Amino acid sequence: VEILLNYIKKTYDGKSKVLDFHHPHQLLEGLEGFSLELRDQPEPLEQILVDCRDTLKYGVKTGHPRYFNQLSSGLDIVGLAGEWLSATANTNMFTYEIAPVFVVMEEILLKKMHEMVGWGEMEADGIFSPGGTISNLYSVLVARYKRFPEIKTKGMAALPHISLFVSEHSHYSVKKAAAVLGIGTDNVIAVKCDERGKMIPSDLEAKILKVKRQDHIPLYVSATAGTTVYGAFDPLDNIADICEKYGLWMHVDVMLFRNIFGLSPRANSVTWNPHKLMGVPLQCSAFLVCEKGLLQACNQMCAGYLFQPDKQYDTTYDTGDKTIQCGRHVDVFKLWLMWKAKGTRGFEILINKSLELAEYLYKELNSRENFELVFDAEPELTNVCFWYIPPNLRRIPNGPEREKLLHQVAPKIKARMIEEGTTMVSYQPHGDKVNFFRMVFSNPATRKSDVDFLLEEIERLGKDL
Amino acid sequence: VEILLNYIKKTYDGKSKVLDFHHPHQLLEGLEGFSLELRDQPEPLEQILVDCRDTLKYGVKTGHPRYFNQLSSGLDIVGLAGEWLSATANTNMFTYEIAPVFVVMEEILLKKMHEMVGWGEMEADGIFSPGGTISNLYSVLVARYKRFPEIKTKGMAALPHISLFVSEHSHYSVKKAAAVLGIGTDNVIAVKCDERGKMIPSDLEAKILKVKRQDHIPLYVSATAGTTVYGAFDPLDNIADICEKYGLWMHVDVMLFRNIFGLSPRANSVTWNPHKLMGVPLQCSAFLVCEKGLLQACNQMCAGYLFQPDKQYDTTYDTGDKTIQCGRHVDVFKLWLMWKAKGTRGFEILINKSLELAEYLYKELNSRENFELVFDAEPELTNVCFWYIPPNLRRIPNGPEREKLLHQVAPKIKARMIEEGTTMVSYQPHGDKVNFFRMVFSNPATRKSDVDFLLEEIERLGKDL
Repeated sequence: VEILLNYIKKTYDGKSKVLDFHHPHQLLEGLEGFSLELRDQPEPLEQILVDCRDTLKYGVKTGHPRYFNQLSSGLDIVGLAGEWLSATANTNMFTYEIAPVFVVMEEILLKKMHEMVGWGEMEADGIFSPGGTISNLYSVLVARYKRFPEIKTKGMAALPHISLFVSEHSHYSVKKAAAVLGIGTDNVIAVKCDERGKMIPSDLEAKILKVKRQDHIPLYVSATAGTTVYGAFDPLDNIADICEKYGLWMHVDVMLFRNIFGLSPRANSVTWNPHKLMGVPLQCSAFLVCEKGLLQACNQMCAGYLFQPDKQYDTTYDTGDKTIQCGRHVDVFKLWLMWKAKGTRGFEILINKSLELAEYLYKELNSRENFELVFDAEPELTNVCFWYIPPNLRRIPNGPEREKLLHQVAPKIKARMIEEGTTMVSYQPHGDKVNFFRMVFSNPATRKSDVDFLLEEIERLGKDL
Repeated sequence: VEILLNYIKKTYDGKSKVLDFHHPHQLLEGLEGFSLELRDQPEPLEQILVDCRDTLKYGVKTGHPRYFNQLSSGLDIVGLAGEWLSATANTNMFTYEIAPVFVVMEEILLKKMHEMVGWGEMEADGIFSPGGTISNLYSVLVARYKRFPEIKTKGMAALPHISLFVSEHSHYSVKKAAAVLGIGTDNVIAVKCDERGKMIPSDLEAKILKVKRQDHIPLYVSATAGTTVYGAFDPLDNIADICEKYGLWMHVDVMLFRNIFGLSPRANSVTWNPHKLMGVPLQCSAFLVCEKGLLQACNQMCAGYLFQPDKQYDTTYDTGDKTIQCGRHVDVFKLWLMWKAKGTRGFEILINKSLELAEYLYKELNSRENFELVFDAEPELTNVCFWYIPPNLRRIPNGPEREKLLHQVAPKIKARMIEEGTTMVSYQPHGDKVNFFRMVFSNPATRKSDVDFLLEEIERLGKDL
């Protein structure tokens, strides 16, 4: 416990390193006093404690105020306490019998989240799942079952050819779901986006009509409220109109929380990941669906050894048969506890803080001459995408030569950044855009001075490129 | 932290209650000083601490020596420390970049587990997943991809009719996988078992031949080394012979660890759940596959924002694209730490202890006249299945009347047990057998006196039925 508390203190200290990088082969071979090898005989307790300390030492401090690599960052102390308590309780969400409090907490959280999505008092349903990608998989699974309930027993062989639609900027999880569910990635149609990364409704409609002409069934659209790279919001109302017109299931993959009230009341299902902007420790993802009973019907197998119908309590609380898992980790308690400690209002404040930092960065980038924005628009989410242009490159005119060199800048800076361990930010190419940095904010410990530090650090590490 | 340590002390105390039962509506309405409701405004820290205490108070002590309800029981203090550290590190398994130590630990654990399965130095592969049901889903997914790689892009529409085989006693997870993957539960063929619950190889072969006559493709068999209810071991060698003869993928769902060396070297894939008999905190499940690269090929989507090919380290360590998830919880550290602390030998001792308790219970049941075994054979795993026959029932001759009454005995005793909170054991019907108790052991804190207590408690609670 002392080792952990010490680590937490160091994590919050902006002056400490974000990471102490070593290559995979170095860790495999073993560092001084830290061997990962497993033996037949036990090792002494002192060694175990040293191992714990070293595991943290050679890891990455995701709660560090200068860690911007992923949208899940920060280390909320109440959330952490919640996770420690869940680990201590060490139970399983499949039945009320062995997780009574957590099962009821899940119901209360789902109800609260439904209200916030804007479904009001409608009898809605949902489940907490191991991550956003699995939540999105649930959305395709349930949409398919709703339209073709025979899928459960007969499989895809009994179905007509179906098509799913996502924007070209959406997360890869829907494609992954199509591969897993036996639909096939070819049947995931990419809808075009505008410059800002928002799905173009007219292209969606055109593509729906196209598959209909091929006698395929347009089944499902996944819209995104905050895309992974650009942080863009698809035009939900226009998409909802098209879904209604052609009878498609509308799923929304939601990143934001601020103003989520009424954000997507027209959606049939929603993925909401509290482990992102709400700062809940990993993992905490909810799949919400606006029709009660659908998840249960789609997934239940009525295993006799778990879901005995002759129990003495109301067995509708044995929610484990709604999932594609059997045992399920308790991910609800940390969220519930944070909600108690912060209130809905506290989450709003938290997210507004991240949004303000994004605006600050956007303005800074606009005013600094060595940086270029990937698209010049006020951030809607906490994402800000930009290139650093080293002095040598500024002299080269726009064109393929410059693009080729610029493509190498971000990876080189990132490599140096990791070696030095001073900060971490992600980069990637996207469509026809060469490698650029993507900043995301979600850590309440981050200050404007950390943003300044990042920009200066990029300049320092990249000026000779 | 103090609240948690106090709870741990109480959990180990055999004299404390296992649970303090309340009905769902009672928890929903709120108990004295414990309201689950969420508000807009934050609540004071003292209230949060009270909430933590109450959450534990109204939960189930799964580490209690008299908790036998599920195969995951016990509370290993090193494992718990590992889970606390993982929570504190709060990172994600998708890339080496942000989880260097944990990614390498996963590789080391998988390698160790491969050796133990008996695959030796073969280039094997695998992944830790959120539970055994998802691990079993991976096995079907990978078997299907191996035979028909076009599934990933084209979906089930491009495939012939395929069939999966499981024993009628196997876990429901393969049926669940078939529903999810678009294969359909009708295409999961149940193979008959003998009295002891073992798959009958000749029935497997007959059923394979039958589907071949229908021009379906027999694709996959899941054998079980320790079934959920009976704890039976399918005859793996005979099944492997049949799989080789007809070209089926052989998966083994493994419960046991003792003598696992060489248990299933002929399997193509294995599910191994350290959160069961090895006593690792929930969740910790591994899917192992004997062909390197298959998982990656089956599941990868090459998302540019995570799996940049131009990183400065060996990106084959970015193992996140092998999964059907995107973000993935760190489930490896607690297992690694326990392995360090216990050694392979320590796990053997742990499991032998549980097996001895099962043998003790088996002998006790044989010698007590108010109990009847579901099948009279020495336990192969820690499962022991039995009926309690109340005095009133002993007077009724065997027949439908007695069966009907006996069916109600276990649920009634279980209801009383839960109300009193003294112990917990599972019951279920199975095939043509009416409700019986299923004992499983995995908690090292359990003693023979706890087994005696359970039997006496069942008699006390059920003697008037």
